[in-house]
Amino acid sequence: MRTHHCNELRSSDIGSTVTLIGWVQSARDHGGVIFTDLRDREGLTQCVFHPEENAEAAKLSHTLRQEDVIQVVGLVAARLKTDDVDTTNSDIATGEIEIVVKELKIVNKAEVLPFQLDKEVHEDLRMKYRYLDMRRPKMARNMKLRHRITKTTRDVLDEDGFLEIETPILSKSTPEGARDFLVPSRMHPGSFYALPQAPQQYKQLLMVGGIEKYFQIARCFRDEDLRADRQPEFTQIDIEASFVNQDDIIGLIEKLMGRIFKESINADIPASFERITYQDAMNRFGSDKPDTRFGYELTELDAVFSTTKFKVFSSILKSGGCIKAINAKGFAGISSGQVDKLTKLAIEAGAKGLAYIQARGETPDTWRSPITKLFTEQELADLKEAMNIEAGDLILFGAGDWETVCDVLGRVRLKVAEYQKILEDNTDLNFLWVTEFPLLAYDAEDDKWNAVHHPFTRPVPEDEEKLRKGELEGLRAQAYDVVLNGYELGGGSIRIHEADLQEAMFDALGVTPEEKVEMFGHILDAFKYGAPPHGGVALGLDRVSMLVAGEESIREVIAFPKNNKGSDIMSDSPAEVDFKQLRELRIQTVAKKPQAQPDSAK
Amino acid sequence: MRTHHCNELRSSDIGSTVTLIGWVQSARDHGGVIFTDLRDREGLTQCVFHPEENAEAAKLSHTLRQEDVIQVVGLVAARLKTDDVDTTNSDIATGEIEIVVKELKIVNKAEVLPFQLDKEVHEDLRMKYRYLDMRRPKMARNMKLRHRITKTTRDVLDEDGFLEIETPILSKSTPEGARDFLVPSRMHPGSFYALPQAPQQYKQLLMVGGIEKYFQIARCFRDEDLRADRQPEFTQIDIEASFVNQDDIIGLIEKLMGRIFKESINADIPASFERITYQDAMNRFGSDKPDTRFGYELTELDAVFSTTKFKVFSSILKSGGCIKAINAKGFAGISSGQVDKLTKLAIEAGAKGLAYIQARGETPDTWRSPITKLFTEQELADLKEAMNIEAGDLILFGAGDWETVCDVLGRVRLKVAEYQKILEDNTDLNFLWVTEFPLLAYDAEDDKWNAVHHPFTRPVPEDEEKLRKGELEGLRAQAYDVVLNGYELGGGSIRIHEADLQEAMFDALGVTPEEKVEMFGHILDAFKYGAPPHGGVALGLDRVSMLVAGEESIREVIAFPKNNKGSDIMSDSPAEVDFKQLRELRIQTVAKKPQAQPDSAK
Repeated sequence: MRTHHCNELRSSDIGSTVTLIGWVQSARDHGGVIFTDLRDREGLTQCVFHPEENAEAAKLSHTLRQEDVIQVVGLVAARLKTDDVDTTNSDIATGEIEIVVKELKIVNKAEVLPFQLDKEVHEDLRMKYRYLDMRRPKMARNMKLRHRITKTTRDVLDEDGFLEIETPILSKSTPEGARDFLVPSRMHPGSFYALPQAPQQYKQLLMVGGIEKYFQIARCFRDEDLRADRQPEFTQIDIEASFVNQDDIIGLIEKLMGRIFKESINADIPASFERITYQDAMNRFGSDKPDTRFGYELTELDAVFSTTKFKVFSSILKSGGCIKAINAKGFAGISSGQVDKLTKLAIEAGAKGLAYIQARGETPDTWRSPITKLFTEQELADLKEAMNIEAGDLILFGAGDWETVCDVLGRVRLKVAEYQKILEDNTDLNFLWVTEFPLLAYDAEDDKWNAVHHPFTRPVPEDEEKLRKGELEGLRAQAYDVVLNGYELGGGSIRIHEADLQEAMFDALGVTPEEKVEMFGHILDAFKYGAPPHGGVALGLDRVSMLVAGEESIREVIAFPKNNKGSDIMSDSPAEVDFKQLRELRIQTVAKKPQAQPDSAK
Repeated sequence: MRTHHCNELRSSDIGSTVTLIGWVQSARDHGGVIFTDLRDREGLTQCVFHPEENAEAAKLSHTLRQEDVIQVVGLVAARLKTDDVDTTNSDIATGEIEIVVKELKIVNKAEVLPFQLDKEVHEDLRMKYRYLDMRRPKMARNMKLRHRITKTTRDVLDEDGFLEIETPILSKSTPEGARDFLVPSRMHPGSFYALPQAPQQYKQLLMVGGIEKYFQIARCFRDEDLRADRQPEFTQIDIEASFVNQDDIIGLIEKLMGRIFKESINADIPASFERITYQDAMNRFGSDKPDTRFGYELTELDAVFSTTKFKVFSSILKSGGCIKAINAKGFAGISSGQVDKLTKLAIEAGAKGLAYIQARGETPDTWRSPITKLFTEQELADLKEAMNIEAGDLILFGAGDWETVCDVLGRVRLKVAEYQKILEDNTDLNFLWVTEFPLLAYDAEDDKWNAVHHPFTRPVPEDEEKLRKGELEGLRAQAYDVVLNGYELGGGSIRIHEADLQEAMFDALGVTPEEKVEMFGHILDAFKYGAPPHGGVALGLDRVSMLVAGEESIREVIAFPKNNKGSDIMSDSPAEVDFKQLRELRIQTVAKKPQAQPDSAK
């Protein structure tokens, strides 16, 4: 149906007769002659309908509308370019030529589109007509990038001997983790499949099965409330390998990321990424996924205030808490509205409030602050030195238990950077490994320890003995996250493969023998028959694609995303179904009408 | 953890110190010295534990059991080979060397396995312990083959500019086709997602979106009763392209198949496949997916019996039916038990019975048959000529309406070939395209026409006008199936993209305007805005993999298949779930106890 695509013809093709097919991007009338830009997936080519070439085609060309599908046969000609007139267009690759049309076939007429493709419109409208939205160059580019990312992933892993293996979507509900989507079984009335939150157990079983190197670009499902930028179904690059240690997995992912960024957007990234422990990441950046493209690191001030008379600080220090602060350089002029917002943010994150200093000048007497009057001169001098306070700086404090202080200041740090537009033109790609995550977290309410990742996660070698002895405080896991510019791209861990260490882990978690069988039955069985040492990692494909594409929402890199109510407004899904279908499944709905449609705008 | 895998060391490595890790395939005691075959994914290497190398390791080696995971460090040595003794093993690639072990580490002990890996066991046991079953060389090979097939598919399609695009699994229930699996929505109580039977509508919407070349290795779901070799979830290589015709799609698939068979099993197949129309396939082989590796074609005998006095035949001919037969060469000696089974098969397929002739000799007087006494001499002579009857042949008749006769004899043909073991050592790969499928099928019961494929399937150009005029008899579709050795690998069609032709199609199907909106709302909307000409195809990955691997069941090429009750007996799925989970979904089960567990053996 065509000899060339619409981004192919150049000056060297002048004189050739060609056939093109595509969409009418625009049709302009210049003195009775119609000029159209013909568009296909690859680009644009100008077509001109001179009456002297084909009177009938020229006449027909006056009926052309945006988004009509047409096929043209014509001669490639140079565009007019003289000292006086230049009709070439250097913005497009085919800008030096045009097609002098000899034959025109209108393949399919288009009605007027519900919105203009070159105008920004509300996301709901874009989603309802996603098939039109996709004709925008940005969306077409994003689909190509995502394809290139998955293709490169497969190339890299295949070269390394990994086998892509499909694991079931109709899977089993697990008592742990997020809420499952359920699928009623018609053949087993009263029973349900669950859609997998991740192929975690299957991939470990594949290791027991001797596959050694597994991967899958796997669809995963979580029935969670969709605040922020989440989707009920998402895709992960899921990897597991036997006979490997943490460095092997880290090296593999560094290689993979290098190839992905090179082959999709031709970006060069470091061959290996900086590593930082969880403890350091929290201490320095107040986050386990720090954005290291800017400073504003947290400074510990316990020593400065060790003998303070300021009650709030002294009582916190006495009870084992800490005091930290960040210096937002040059931001002393923060507005009172911004201070209020930061304070609100801090309180939402668990702080009691947000103390600060606006350093209008060099010396403490020029500082504006609700708390400095409570500090001694020595404390002020020590603070100035510790925080390197200069005229124009803004100091923001956190005081309380370590985890809350880190988290609060970590959030405040990001928000301040946003206010100051520090990252506005920043094109850095700061990759980072965060390692040595805690193995266990103590739940004071239930007085028990929980697994931070999952109960198969392995402690670091130095902490193995402690786990066996039941000394659970401060155990570190062989778990690692890869972070880019403050986004967690993914993470994983080395697993426990020995029965006795696994027992110690279950003992630590207070899992009873009955619970063990119910929750982990077949995988514990499997581990009895010669489980190899193994570990793995999973990367969020949607998020990787988003960052490669430079987008701010994963919906921009998903062909048919759902909205934050979990609905696809294009196909109107989910939807009510025939009573007959439910009867066959032996289920019935017990939705009460008023609650039935919480987003009744639907 | 290793310097080499277990299929890597050769004579040229003799003298190197190496580290291997893997599973103990076997441990044999020869005069107090333990010899083990160490196994990993790649193969086997013999390890020997001489006490003089390391007394402790040698002692420990006596505790080794099958499937223990061990790590050894040792020296690569030549196996003993003299005129008297030859301990080399030409069956394995590492058979000229062995590892003289200096260090042994037992990484993980294995309990006694529930079955021996080198013995055949019941499939239920294999499925319950799939992770052990997978350690068998055949299963490991099948997983590798399937990986190679999908990788090659992606390579080929990527080279051709196809983009792999993921479409939703949480999708919408469609009123057509097979039964959907449903997923209750928690956020929209009373509403349901459906798991897709195929991404049919999405892929056509991607064409409207200007993607031009789409593919996906897509998981699909059908809640059907699982007779035969079916799975509730299966995988298809799903392809759609714009601006293409039937030859383009056929050429693409021929190229893809060529690459798949070359790169997975190094088989050369023809660059293009024979094409046969649906009509011819039925007439000649009694099947729309003919196995052409053997003859036994159907012969039409209407002319032979045009004036017959044999009432059964004459009345069938009078009412527009036909008479056909096949000649199973050399099978006159068929047992009466086999005749009974063939007759049963024929009756199940819709025949009234199965007439036959056992040609014990050349001449009709030597023939044994329940019907030849009713034929004239002329008829017998004509029959002998038409069917090329020789001594020892078996003639099997079908008489009735065309479709039933073809179908019956098609099945009989395959069964006879099975009895005669015609294909036993046949390694041919007979690819075939079946084209020009019927567009519409008349449903006498409801007095209406149904779409044979789906309502977007395009008629052949010669029949377009007839469809527009409502002349519906005998319309042929631009639909095509690719067949290998009697298995349908997949199929597809060119689609209707014009509004007026689509209207004619809906008129033919008697679809009301309301039904149109309800059943096809958004896709018909999409087609208004400049839909390009397009078409596609889908191949069953499970079946392709099965045939590449030379297996007889798709379960052999699926990592974690379900049984014919839709159950995964390894993870015990589907299963009952917490009442709390159902309450959150606002559904309840109405399973009555006696009906609740139709496969109560579970």
